[in-house]
Amino acid sequence: MTLVRIGILGYGNLGRGVECAVADNEDMELAAVFTRRNPESVKIMTENVPVVAAAELEKWQGKIDVLVICGGSATDMPEQTPACAKLFNVVDSFDTHKKIPEHFANVDKAARETGHVALISTGWDPGMFSVNRLYSSCILPKGKNYTFWGKGVSQGHSDAIRRIKGVKDARQYTIPVPEALEAVRSGQQPDFTTREMHRRECFVVAEEGADLERIENEIKTMPNYFADYDTTVHFITEEELLRDHRGIPHGGFVIRTGKTGRNGENSHVIEYRLKLDSNPEFTASAIIAFCRAVARLSKEGDSGCKTVFDIAPAYLSPLSGEELRRTML
Amino acid sequence: MTLVRIGILGYGNLGRGVECAVADNEDMELAAVFTRRNPESVKIMTENVPVVAAAELEKWQGKIDVLVICGGSATDMPEQTPACAKLFNVVDSFDTHKKIPEHFANVDKAARETGHVALISTGWDPGMFSVNRLYSSCILPKGKNYTFWGKGVSQGHSDAIRRIKGVKDARQYTIPVPEALEAVRSGQQPDFTTREMHRRECFVVAEEGADLERIENEIKTMPNYFADYDTTVHFITEEELLRDHRGIPHGGFVIRTGKTGRNGENSHVIEYRLKLDSNPEFTASAIIAFCRAVARLSKEGDSGCKTVFDIAPAYLSPLSGEELRRTML
Repeated sequence: MTLVRIGILGYGNLGRGVECAVADNEDMELAAVFTRRNPESVKIMTENVPVVAAAELEKWQGKIDVLVICGGSATDMPEQTPACAKLFNVVDSFDTHKKIPEHFANVDKAARETGHVALISTGWDPGMFSVNRLYSSCILPKGKNYTFWGKGVSQGHSDAIRRIKGVKDARQYTIPVPEALEAVRSGQQPDFTTREMHRRECFVVAEEGADLERIENEIKTMPNYFADYDTTVHFITEEELLRDHRGIPHGGFVIRTGKTGRNGENSHVIEYRLKLDSNPEFTASAIIAFCRAVARLSKEGDSGCKTVFDIAPAYLSPLSGEELRRTML
Repeated sequence: MTLVRIGILGYGNLGRGVECAVADNEDMELAAVFTRRNPESVKIMTENVPVVAAAELEKWQGKIDVLVICGGSATDMPEQTPACAKLFNVVDSFDTHKKIPEHFANVDKAARETGHVALISTGWDPGMFSVNRLYSSCILPKGKNYTFWGKGVSQGHSDAIRRIKGVKDARQYTIPVPEALEAVRSGQQPDFTTREMHRRECFVVAEEGADLERIENEIKTMPNYFADYDTTVHFITEEELLRDHRGIPHGGFVIRTGKTGRNGENSHVIEYRLKLDSNPEFTASAIIAFCRAVARLSKEGDSGCKTVFDIAPAYLSPLSGEELRRTML
């Protein structure tokens, strides 16, 4: 068995998740971790794998089958993914939904010119949630899609709370409204306001002597982030935050309901649900499955930018077509 | 827009479902319905579409893009799908899991020799359930898959009850055991006996004067079908059966739980659920989405036998890659 040699660019939560996922897949091996920090300051879990300065990436051509871009979507990936697609096959988890077409075009150009395969925006949303929206929409054209997120930690919303004066630390959970979920599952195809689908729960550590009432009010009235939601604020101690809110759980639901029959008399519900203890580790696990597909497509001579929509499920598996048909069909 | 011309072979519940699904997809049209019965005795819903004797199939080459095989898996499809794959691109819903490798080989040979594309075993199980088993297994290699069926009508079990002396009619529901579902979702990865995963509920119309106790006993002790399950038997009137048990609902759950992290410290649950008012209409809707993929692959010059594992999700959609990335990713 030839192992798929994986490189990781960026060693934060996602990079560490990718490292774990490589270890969980027997046909994969970690070739190197690249960092913009001083490599000597970065300690990784896998033994005998080098940590290398990102500036050295070019020298690793031919030694890596797929490079996983583990920076942020806001500023890192728009630069890194196209740049790296000139050197390697790459996979990223770019999740700024609105900018996907632009990102796709940039990455596609770089990958085509150099004959590499690039896969962008994998993970769970975008990623497996997208795949489920697509399958369900195709099977039930007369229907409606709903996506609920949570219960889970939103990093962006937690950060927004931390920027408020007097806040030392904070954790924000996005929570689907159970009545909304039930209404969707009933097949009624309801229309919802923002407030009706999700609520927000905040755990806040205030600085000593801070005005809690003002902080709570600033959170609840913050435009875009909280104003359109029912928001609950709990003030807790730093100790409680570290003890009870260390994890990065997430998940959610993609539900499509639709009608079939001569007069739409039959109703159907397709529901895909994720319940994840660790958002970055699950994202990393999906990325690694798609790395396998990218390595294969590249071996077949394919090139250019792809998304999860373009990958036949069989490409994700280490099993042969024959084994898959015998054991999973 | 060039319409995909669909032919239907066999006009039972599934064939009628396919007819409805074609009507729900704007890029599809029904070209003809083929039957082994006297065509004049078959009345279809769509206007101006011919009903043709199955013996005439050969004459329709060039007039049909994809033929949907709507016979039974036991005896029809093993003959019909390979035979028809010599004449047309074909899609079937062959669901005898154990015989899929043999069926695949036969259909592949016929399709390759004549340059057609054939897709077998689509629908929901095999079909969308299989796709979900595959994706989940690849993303969480350290995990375990569970498939629950129901609540839904099992045709095979209903038929088995009808063969008992003194039974006039019957309907059998397969029902997942809620405690088993919850145990799986908890991430414990339990092992179950047959009895622990599903129970069976039977609604039976007895002939006048029949020995109800004997019938109930014969059902509950029937090997393979009922003996290994907790089975409930309700005797009802024919009127009640027709009033309350006309539908063909089904569905179920594919759940995978798995661990990630350096020491498997994080647990994840991937759950795919179907709740279907009409088993044959949903199966037909999935078939029609895959017919679109088959027509495209054929246009691209592909040939041979495929399964749902071999089809990139984007091929199922009438939207372009650009539209999909913009609206669903």
